[in-house]
Amino acid sequence: MTIELHAIAAPVFTARLKSLVHLLKIAEAEGPARGLSEEAVLGARLASDMFDLKRQVQIATDHAKGAMARLAGIDVPSFPDSEQTFSELYARIDKTLAFVASVPASAVDGRQEAIVTLKLRHETMELKAFDYLQGFAIPNFYFHLTTAYDILRHLGMPVGKRDFLWQE
Amino acid sequence: MTIELHAIAAPVFTARLKSLVHLLKIAEAEGPARGLSEEAVLGARLASDMFDLKRQVQIATDHAKGAMARLAGIDVPSFPDSEQTFSELYARIDKTLAFVASVPASAVDGRQEAIVTLKLRHETMELKAFDYLQGFAIPNFYFHLTTAYDILRHLGMPVGKRDFLWQE
Repeated sequence: MTIELHAIAAPVFTARLKSLVHLLKIAEAEGPARGLSEEAVLGARLASDMFDLKRQVQIATDHAKGAMARLAGIDVPSFPDSEQTFSELYARIDKTLAFVASVPASAVDGRQEAIVTLKLRHETMELKAFDYLQGFAIPNFYFHLTTAYDILRHLGMPVGKRDFLWQE
Repeated sequence: MTIELHAIAAPVFTARLKSLVHLLKIAEAEGPARGLSEEAVLGARLASDMFDLKRQVQIATDHAKGAMARLAGIDVPSFPDSEQTFSELYARIDKTLAFVASVPASAVDGRQEAIVTLKLRHETMELKAFDYLQGFAIPNFYFHLTTAYDILRHLGMPVGKRDFLWQE
């Protein structure tokens, strides 16, 4: 096998977004026994000036859909950040998984040197697609995914690294 | 450019281990003003049954050196887990960076389908090198790296995602 761009992107997002659903389902089931409402779990954070759990989930999905769109050179789908419940977060993750699956390898492979333009809050960056994926999209994706996990862990939820690496 | 195995491993470990040094240096400098001793910072954790900061750093380096060795089909260097100070952790990260740099692309590239045997606590896994890297080594590396960051954030250290993505 040769290593192609799609294979170092889509399977990573798909596997770990499914792990994220698995983690959230544990939190949803275990919250009530711990005296934690849905709102309390999804609004939990590790520091007062840090994003809460639901926002970590939203941003993780943003990096997954953003990466697949940019690697393919198509528009990034926009999802309103309005989720307030576990059900709504599952729906957002499902929409993201469907979008990732909708971008075929043929639309991505070979585009590792295509220029990706990234509009951030304070700057615009131009990067080769490969560098964008490895140095920006994937680190950001894992950053928000792991922080979601760490929030659950800090809440006392019975999750472990096996759940983070969970696979169907 | 074609995408080769070394290029999706070594630069990731190198860039993010340097970010980790950057994050730890902020924590080392800022601890005293926050009434936190070196021991308190390095012993901090997010849950009582979770590894503390120094152990998160040790395990992150383990996944980096483990991956580079296994991808090249050579022995994984063993580091004793004895670090108790910032200086000792910097030395461990430096040793890891030097090991990552010592494995040339020529020793890794083309080995994506070589079988990696992974001895875990309760099982032995055999995986293709590519799948081991993408599905095990890199997720684990980011998991411990981000958790180290989240511990600093939870301690109130003045770090942000820019520090996590920091580059020389």
